[in-house]
Amino acid sequence: MSATTSVTAFNVIEKKEGFEVRLDGRLVFEHSMNRPFIFVGSGEETIDMYRGNFKFEDYLIERVPLRYAAITNLGDSYEISFRRFSDDKDVLSIHLGQDGDALKTAFHLKDKSLNRFWIRVTSDKEEKVYGCGEQLSYFNMRGKNFPLWTSEPGVGRNKNTYTTWQADVKDQAGGDYYNTNFPQPTFISTNKYFCHVETTAYADFDFRHEDFHELQIWGIPSYILFEGAPTYKKLVNRLTARLGRQPELPDWTYNGIWLGIQGGTDLVEEKLERSLKKGLKVGAVWCQDWQGKRVTSFGKRLMWNWQWNPEEYPNLDKKIHEWKEQGIRFLGYINPYVVKEGHLYKEAKQNGFLAMAEDGGDYLVDFGEFYCGVVDFTNEEAYRWYKSVIKDNLIDFGLDGWMADFGEYLPTDLKLSNGKPATIMHNAWPALWAKVNHDAVKEAGRWGDIVYFMRAGYTGIQATCPLLWAGDQSVNWSLDDGLASVIPAALSAGMTGCGIHHSDIGGYTSLHGNKRTKELLLRWVDMAAFTPVMRTHEGNRPDDCFQYDGDDETLDHFVKMTNVYVTLAPYMKMLVKQNAEEGIPVQRPLFMEYEKDVRSYDIQYQYLLGTDILVAPVHEEGKTTWKVYLPEDDWVHFWSGEAYKGGDIEVDAPIGQPPVFYRKTSSYRELFVKAAQESVGK
Amino acid sequence: MSATTSVTAFNVIEKKEGFEVRLDGRLVFEHSMNRPFIFVGSGEETIDMYRGNFKFEDYLIERVPLRYAAITNLGDSYEISFRRFSDDKDVLSIHLGQDGDALKTAFHLKDKSLNRFWIRVTSDKEEKVYGCGEQLSYFNMRGKNFPLWTSEPGVGRNKNTYTTWQADVKDQAGGDYYNTNFPQPTFISTNKYFCHVETTAYADFDFRHEDFHELQIWGIPSYILFEGAPTYKKLVNRLTARLGRQPELPDWTYNGIWLGIQGGTDLVEEKLERSLKKGLKVGAVWCQDWQGKRVTSFGKRLMWNWQWNPEEYPNLDKKIHEWKEQGIRFLGYINPYVVKEGHLYKEAKQNGFLAMAEDGGDYLVDFGEFYCGVVDFTNEEAYRWYKSVIKDNLIDFGLDGWMADFGEYLPTDLKLSNGKPATIMHNAWPALWAKVNHDAVKEAGRWGDIVYFMRAGYTGIQATCPLLWAGDQSVNWSLDDGLASVIPAALSAGMTGCGIHHSDIGGYTSLHGNKRTKELLLRWVDMAAFTPVMRTHEGNRPDDCFQYDGDDETLDHFVKMTNVYVTLAPYMKMLVKQNAEEGIPVQRPLFMEYEKDVRSYDIQYQYLLGTDILVAPVHEEGKTTWKVYLPEDDWVHFWSGEAYKGGDIEVDAPIGQPPVFYRKTSSYRELFVKAAQESVGK
Repeated sequence: MSATTSVTAFNVIEKKEGFEVRLDGRLVFEHSMNRPFIFVGSGEETIDMYRGNFKFEDYLIERVPLRYAAITNLGDSYEISFRRFSDDKDVLSIHLGQDGDALKTAFHLKDKSLNRFWIRVTSDKEEKVYGCGEQLSYFNMRGKNFPLWTSEPGVGRNKNTYTTWQADVKDQAGGDYYNTNFPQPTFISTNKYFCHVETTAYADFDFRHEDFHELQIWGIPSYILFEGAPTYKKLVNRLTARLGRQPELPDWTYNGIWLGIQGGTDLVEEKLERSLKKGLKVGAVWCQDWQGKRVTSFGKRLMWNWQWNPEEYPNLDKKIHEWKEQGIRFLGYINPYVVKEGHLYKEAKQNGFLAMAEDGGDYLVDFGEFYCGVVDFTNEEAYRWYKSVIKDNLIDFGLDGWMADFGEYLPTDLKLSNGKPATIMHNAWPALWAKVNHDAVKEAGRWGDIVYFMRAGYTGIQATCPLLWAGDQSVNWSLDDGLASVIPAALSAGMTGCGIHHSDIGGYTSLHGNKRTKELLLRWVDMAAFTPVMRTHEGNRPDDCFQYDGDDETLDHFVKMTNVYVTLAPYMKMLVKQNAEEGIPVQRPLFMEYEKDVRSYDIQYQYLLGTDILVAPVHEEGKTTWKVYLPEDDWVHFWSGEAYKGGDIEVDAPIGQPPVFYRKTSSYRELFVKAAQESVGK
Repeated sequence: MSATTSVTAFNVIEKKEGFEVRLDGRLVFEHSMNRPFIFVGSGEETIDMYRGNFKFEDYLIERVPLRYAAITNLGDSYEISFRRFSDDKDVLSIHLGQDGDALKTAFHLKDKSLNRFWIRVTSDKEEKVYGCGEQLSYFNMRGKNFPLWTSEPGVGRNKNTYTTWQADVKDQAGGDYYNTNFPQPTFISTNKYFCHVETTAYADFDFRHEDFHELQIWGIPSYILFEGAPTYKKLVNRLTARLGRQPELPDWTYNGIWLGIQGGTDLVEEKLERSLKKGLKVGAVWCQDWQGKRVTSFGKRLMWNWQWNPEEYPNLDKKIHEWKEQGIRFLGYINPYVVKEGHLYKEAKQNGFLAMAEDGGDYLVDFGEFYCGVVDFTNEEAYRWYKSVIKDNLIDFGLDGWMADFGEYLPTDLKLSNGKPATIMHNAWPALWAKVNHDAVKEAGRWGDIVYFMRAGYTGIQATCPLLWAGDQSVNWSLDDGLASVIPAALSAGMTGCGIHHSDIGGYTSLHGNKRTKELLLRWVDMAAFTPVMRTHEGNRPDDCFQYDGDDETLDHFVKMTNVYVTLAPYMKMLVKQNAEEGIPVQRPLFMEYEKDVRSYDIQYQYLLGTDILVAPVHEEGKTTWKVYLPEDDWVHFWSGEAYKGGDIEVDAPIGQPPVFYRKTSSYRELFVKAAQESVGK
């Protein structure tokens, strides 16, 4: 009964009262009358959006098990049709077939009144699961459920923090552990398979049960893929073979740090000169407000009418080229919304490029004291138009990159050109937004040279966005929102096929009394030197945030850590290439390289930078030493050269010497020694 | 087809695709294949208790509509059996029959694997509903759902308050709007019917839907009663005819205020003397710590070994009688748990009177830094024994009343003597605890003379507890937890058949920085003078609470307001008698007397004291005037004698002159004038 058309075989094994589905012997689905694995039903959701924060309520009307299954063997595949009771008509059928090395389970819904779907994937007590996009609080997701809906992460993602409580009460803006700009219905299991669900509907993956995962989807998915592999590297390799891979970063990336500066040409020039004079290697200046700014109660915001603002940035058209000749690129900012006061809004509205209210009227989204139209990317002409905005106003003007912000805000009560419900397009939006950028850059012949970075993501982002950034951290030490949260974010994104990640150095959000201290900023740059890209951000309230040039000591420190980063470039480039070619992330969980190390599976605040470097960022205040877990190997402490074997150790960890270790046998050893000298001196 | 065996007729009307059930023409249930009204299913709950605060999680496995109904007409009743699908076996049948003037729907579950039940009661957009026990945040429950599970109310019942947040984070003790010591699956509708569900299982009544109420019960109820009446008074009358009614309060109640004092005989005597000397009329001294006290981080707690503590209360055995001769009763305290260190615990344990852990081992409940056994009232001998503790240690010792505290804490993982799951007995416990007290008092021949007061409640409490108290308010002005919350509490309890209610004057809980101010205490006593019983409480942290004798001015104020109360006694007694005889509550919502006044249905911070007095307590800080809504009538301002018609008015509301009005035509007018003089003077 097993299908043996491929090396990787799946089996459907009929039993007395049901059947099993196995992939390479691994139990994937189990069905019996008493323990069916698919449930269908109907619900009435209420979705409330306030500035990118969504509140869901679901009135569940029905949830009915599909107890009755009829199997048809089609040779190398199977068709199974399901009924709720014996004299029911078929309500759903599934088709199990081989797709490359994967088991592809396709779904066909026959009873269209159903809009809720649950499927149980067999599990066991020991299994751990990772991925589901960019998860910032829990890398191993077992023991919790994860609603998958792209949104603002929330100002505070832990209901027990005072920051989150204030955000909830004052702005309806508090998040929870699962809130993320980049969710994705894809995970990797320690049972050595990945599971990818092809859907953009609201989903909730529940990993709380002992013997199954229950995947809830508000709609019937197109298909679910399961594919196994002997190693985790091979798993991400196979996953990204399907989802796509980020290209390599351009060489200029590694020229130095990207300085997030705002305030107009003169101020930028002045800050840049001072930095360069101090010896800071600068890869780019990143001026969000190149198109103008506004000030709201939240802090500094941008103009949202995407073209050069010559009043705030006089001579930028010339400067941009001068800087480029110095090896310093100019980066800007854009997002998929157009502000009501701007000419782009007018143009879009005249041409019918904006998504409309359900009643056909105008639809404006509240972004916090200003209002914008939503460019309807499901309208081919609108898509083409926005691509031309990027080409004409950004690329042709001379920008070599930008933050491609937002993508999470698609309201659910919009009317879209493609006729699909906005509830279904909401999660599709980030990848659609990425694709607009991707196509614009590609058509300009600049793919691989221009870099844009996004926080929003979903299935598809892998192939269309060259660089993730971890979104808006709080400028503090909290595990769920601060410096530490960037690490599980990078690791889970990597397990979802996005292996190039970075964050705002120092964090971004300084609401509710949070202020960025010098210490936090220094610890953050220490970590950033060991990530693919170093980029600063002034924060939403620059005056509440210590800045990279806040004093001489800090600027000197940035010089040193940037030198470490620049020196490491050959190693980093090799990793970035590996990610582009094989889908193996630059920042990796320890278990990816040490599969037999049981403890490594629960470590989420350390990472491997490639095979040869282990990084354990200091993410608490006032520390002088730091506890590190090293998998068994021959390790050398990056700064002191001291040798370590595996186990729990504690090392000196002054600022400028983050707990970093390299493998003694690394072929990059000399490079690492040289990089260390940049900070420690010799 | 209509059953006409009674004046109040119900009908079962078969339709093309289903049926309707009507009571006096009122649509109660509607069923069709497409819109069934009963759903059954199964779930796996996780219940976590921490010091009386419960956390529920339900993994809902199935929720299946019962689409297929077969009706059998039995002459004057109907049997309807339900199936999920056409070739299913019967999973549930209901019996619709007349019970007095009510429609009784009895349930018979045939598929024992089902443990979840939902039934829809037909509603309409305009309907409002009241009751469900003692609800402190929302009197009209429409638009929200109400989990019904007796528990600590939570220190803070509004997730938006800083107090609640702190309680949640520090002690897992924050509540929500629906948390109450006294829930009950019974409500009264503005469609002029009451609905009572006979069950003690966890329930959640969902009043959020426009055209139905959905009553969820974790188990199949025995029956549901619907009974109509032409007026609200008649409705509570009929409801209490079934549930029972509180007896009249003894005459000594009205002798004066009940002073909550602690600290031993001398201190009590001293405080009492000082109060009496000032002219304070005292009905009772209430000494919680008559049996000893302990100090925990929460504040002052009691010893929980229920007998006179002669070390802390020397000579109490004599004093108690001396005071009684002066017309001052002595009240104490007891609850249904016995502390591990005490002799009662030892005795109970030896005799097998304590509820056990599921594995048969000892079970101790954490009450906050001390541990107690649970007396198993389902064990007849244990019940008898605890009754004798009350008779011997309390009644025979001379107590004329007590706080019969707790009753909400029955853990759900206990083994009980009657073999029923603790999840089913949890909600039954308050009424069982009330019954132990009731039986003890009755057997001592003191029913109607001894008064105990409870905060915990559930169906059955009406007949067995002479006096409710509103539980532990925060010592502040918050709507959900402070002074104001006592008003909806009294009103909803009254709509559930408990018409005699009072509260701790000044509130109780002073955690997380809340401190009782003099102003709060004075406003509270102003309100209490217009309730059946006046009783003070020191608070959990007496040093953080302004006390009734905190200064001369305050004590003088208590003298005046107690005089008002005592003067009103003839009127109050009449109301209390009416409650005992007819079930019409002493404190009534405005619409109970003014059914045609549309606005009166949404007023929850004013009440009518009987027919003739309207009370609108000042529940905000720093007020000198107060806005009041008066239904159309001839009103006289209690203190100034000024005349008012109906409508929105604003009156002077200095301390000592709470906004109170009486009906000009009241036969008690002279009494009211006299009472007013006690405060205003003349």
